[in-house]
Amino acid sequence: MNKLIAVIFLFLSMTNAVAQNSDPLPSWQDTGPKKAVIQFVNMVINPGGVDYVEPGNRVAVFDNDGTLWAEQPMYVQLAFALDRLKSLQPEHPEWKNKPFLKALMDNNPDALKKVSHSELIDLMMLTHANISIENFATAVTDWIASARHPKTQQLYTSMVYQPMLELLTYLRENGFKTYIVSGGGVEFMRPWTQAVYGIPPEQVIGSSLQREFVLKDNRPTLMRLSKIQVLNDKAQKPISIEEHIGRRPIAAFGNSDGDLQMLQWVTAGEGARLGLIVHHTDSVREWAYDRDSHVGKLDKALDNATQNGWIIADMKQDWRKVFPFDK
Amino acid sequence: MNKLIAVIFLFLSMTNAVAQNSDPLPSWQDTGPKKAVIQFVNMVINPGGVDYVEPGNRVAVFDNDGTLWAEQPMYVQLAFALDRLKSLQPEHPEWKNKPFLKALMDNNPDALKKVSHSELIDLMMLTHANISIENFATAVTDWIASARHPKTQQLYTSMVYQPMLELLTYLRENGFKTYIVSGGGVEFMRPWTQAVYGIPPEQVIGSSLQREFVLKDNRPTLMRLSKIQVLNDKAQKPISIEEHIGRRPIAAFGNSDGDLQMLQWVTAGEGARLGLIVHHTDSVREWAYDRDSHVGKLDKALDNATQNGWIIADMKQDWRKVFPFDK
Repeated sequence: MNKLIAVIFLFLSMTNAVAQNSDPLPSWQDTGPKKAVIQFVNMVINPGGVDYVEPGNRVAVFDNDGTLWAEQPMYVQLAFALDRLKSLQPEHPEWKNKPFLKALMDNNPDALKKVSHSELIDLMMLTHANISIENFATAVTDWIASARHPKTQQLYTSMVYQPMLELLTYLRENGFKTYIVSGGGVEFMRPWTQAVYGIPPEQVIGSSLQREFVLKDNRPTLMRLSKIQVLNDKAQKPISIEEHIGRRPIAAFGNSDGDLQMLQWVTAGEGARLGLIVHHTDSVREWAYDRDSHVGKLDKALDNATQNGWIIADMKQDWRKVFPFDK
Repeated sequence: MNKLIAVIFLFLSMTNAVAQNSDPLPSWQDTGPKKAVIQFVNMVINPGGVDYVEPGNRVAVFDNDGTLWAEQPMYVQLAFALDRLKSLQPEHPEWKNKPFLKALMDNNPDALKKVSHSELIDLMMLTHANISIENFATAVTDWIASARHPKTQQLYTSMVYQPMLELLTYLRENGFKTYIVSGGGVEFMRPWTQAVYGIPPEQVIGSSLQREFVLKDNRPTLMRLSKIQVLNDKAQKPISIEEHIGRRPIAAFGNSDGDLQMLQWVTAGEGARLGLIVHHTDSVREWAYDRDSHVGKLDKALDNATQNGWIIADMKQDWRKVFPFDK
């Protein structure tokens, strides 16, 4: 059997060699970020090198909103909440009595800007809680298959960054396990991350609601309660990484101050480390925003980048293509 | 390249066929439980069958204490806490002022029996909290490499059940992902589960303390706080499975009422399901205990087994060998 295994490894390394001859990141310009990523990968996979990392420890974590897909003009999950509010409206005539809900349901253009933090939480709970995990997954699956982005009219699952899709594939082809570590709801992402990013449910870490185990006629159900269990942002990101993965990743990808602590945690580890920030600089093909944005604010993390050796991927300069549907 | 891949798959299926010709579970008697396990696996891996399950959904969850390793005369983690209390004693002269701590440090034989629930929590916090995750992992690694079981004088990592080790391997060889879902501390288990069970850190789910992200001189640390974050027992087990895995496993293995809800959750799913309870019936080779035990109490889950079709593995009858060191 050992001979068979040797033959298999020989073939595997041959196919690997074939893969490496073509450009693994064709949507990246041949600028600094692409070179840095390839150099990093070559270092950690080189079995003879000082920076070699065992496959099991090749863990890469990715923020989602603004890092893997677009987050403008609003988080996709918020668009889902607004659509779901309207679709559930017939069952809840009492919602019209709350001015902010009425304004949202009436598509009042200023309604979202005026919403307070507690009203936003209310909106999320009304549209995300008091439902079983299966029924919620169905609601997400149905919505994501049909809802369209207000600017491009594309499906939201097409509003993903082609260079990042290539990066995910490239890392996995080199023995990395790729995880999402997002502030978005974990059960909002899991129904579609395998198909869109090649990331299975167990490698998606996100915010979550408390859940209750309910047994009815010997049939167990998990219900989503209207109370936040984890808000997976900022310092919670490295904590969630420890809780879920239990090893320190060697590469982290983010785009906002919500990813600052994750970048710090990952890149402060020993050996070769990669930290990369997607900088939204392209007002034509995507959006241009950073320090003053209400969504995906990038300020402190940008200030910290040089000192920590984090790579800035300038969307305008460093990406040949932004979305898969771009010409 | 497609031809190469075809060749690889041919070789893989040949090696697989070789593996299947020998008995995958030699430490199991040829009784009902072994037959049921093999029948279940054959059903879910048969691509033409009605019960076929895609490899990604072949998820199996295992309780640890009493299911994969011995939990008598006390949980191994409690033995760790007691040893650690003594080793930290020189730095904490004030501990002598607390009668229950003094009794524990003096090896008073009745001390443990008299400890109250809140004293037990105190003991766990004093020995598990206010330490970085790295330093705690080192403490666990050092202890587990040298501490010995009071009855057998074996290393605790030798007090694992040979039939269950074979089962873990057998499931993985058939495309299953194997997880631990334990009431034990997640950071107490992860340092050794890969070496002992072949289960990597990211597939270990357990109880956890709250953690704090601390940045000192641009060096981030994760500190373990003296407050429980998750007590991963009973109804929390299916909830943690949803939080961490995000799919419903198709096989669950437990030994106590702490596993009842996990067994219910897993086996109520559609399609072929396997629930198995390790019943401690062997007072000679291991221990015999169930309904009245202070550790690993098995009462309700035993009552529920028949109705739910759960298999009872009777240690005395169904296991040829218990520990790897048994003759």
